[in-house]
Amino acid sequence: MPVDQNASLEITAFEWVPSFAQGFVRDLRPRWACEEIDLPYSERLIGVGPRPDGYYSEQPWGQVPVLKDDGVELFESGAILLHLGEKDERLMPRDRQGRALTISWLFAAYNSVEPLMFELGNVDIFSKDEEWAKLRRPSLMGWCEQRLDRLTDALVGGEYLAGQFTVADIAMATVLREADKTDLVSSRPALAAYLARCLARPAFERALDTQLAVFAAHEPQGEAA
Amino acid sequence: MPVDQNASLEITAFEWVPSFAQGFVRDLRPRWACEEIDLPYSERLIGVGPRPDGYYSEQPWGQVPVLKDDGVELFESGAILLHLGEKDERLMPRDRQGRALTISWLFAAYNSVEPLMFELGNVDIFSKDEEWAKLRRPSLMGWCEQRLDRLTDALVGGEYLAGQFTVADIAMATVLREADKTDLVSSRPALAAYLARCLARPAFERALDTQLAVFAAHEPQGEAA
Repeated sequence: MPVDQNASLEITAFEWVPSFAQGFVRDLRPRWACEEIDLPYSERLIGVGPRPDGYYSEQPWGQVPVLKDDGVELFESGAILLHLGEKDERLMPRDRQGRALTISWLFAAYNSVEPLMFELGNVDIFSKDEEWAKLRRPSLMGWCEQRLDRLTDALVGGEYLAGQFTVADIAMATVLREADKTDLVSSRPALAAYLARCLARPAFERALDTQLAVFAAHEPQGEAA
Repeated sequence: MPVDQNASLEITAFEWVPSFAQGFVRDLRPRWACEEIDLPYSERLIGVGPRPDGYYSEQPWGQVPVLKDDGVELFESGAILLHLGEKDERLMPRDRQGRALTISWLFAAYNSVEPLMFELGNVDIFSKDEEWAKLRRPSLMGWCEQRLDRLTDALVGGEYLAGQFTVADIAMATVLREADKTDLVSSRPALAAYLARCLARPAFERALDTQLAVFAAHEPQGEAA
């Protein structure tokens, strides 16, 4: 279990979030990376209400995670995944083309796939009662379908995006998992197999359990079921 | 002028796009980076119609740019900016925290700012006649305002995002420039000054002129004004 409150590597996470967000907050991504290489990290837990003093100067949007590592500080989970990937070839190959491919797919997850999945979550969950969301859904789904068709094509013949498992798969799998309430992934067998392969990794399960255990331990009084 | 058809570094770009996209296609970003450090590159121009054979295996979405550099190949402009940034400290500091901050802001531009600006462009330009776009605009603008307020706060007292000019500024400035038809940037003096400071760099002007010259040279017959 990589969580070790004496570890110098520190991941900032929320101590509790509402149930719909549990298991999806982005500290899951660096937790997963640390689990893959058995890298100990300490947790710094903050509340979802007013942020701690000075927190916006650490994380401009007030979000999590933030990573502190031996005097270096990063925000944005993509940047944190890249930083952790550079520590171990099990997270990013050391050869030039393997590294180039990992970084390309890492940005692809964050810039070419996640924005569409995020907007779909907005339409289907957060704004589902809004008239615009109902009107917008068909054309948005068209974009999502086309993008995931191409992602599926790129996966043909490969177990992972960059050949071996990398931080790009941590990003892409956590992004695809957010579309789980639609059939976008399940209707594409090669994509569904890829996502299942990623999520079956013991390191993912440990990371998810660790995040959920934090929320369970900080369940607000009087709101528990 | 870094364009040199004998250079081994190669940037793939479109030979022509419709006027609304001219000056905004993402090969502008690596062109700008090359101009900053006077790094020669060759252009590989492709059509916007059917892509060349095998192109989707180079760039899964069929977009540009692709970068080829001494046997290494990258797609996604964010990955390409990172690759170019690693070549020269004028694009990314060599100290650990300077590098961490550059990478954090690079992902911030691609994952936390560009998706909102892109959606706003969708609402205001591509889908402007759709009912959903009109209904959706107020809440989307609220998100954009909040995000740019925080970006503005982060810029207080600094000329550039990571202290010195870096590839993160190339990403953020090209992203902010896309919101130029609204007052989102102009109504925030510190943000407007930051964008103006970036766009006043001679390297940006040269990169923009180079992209526009390509389109002018490939204007389809019979469509010129």
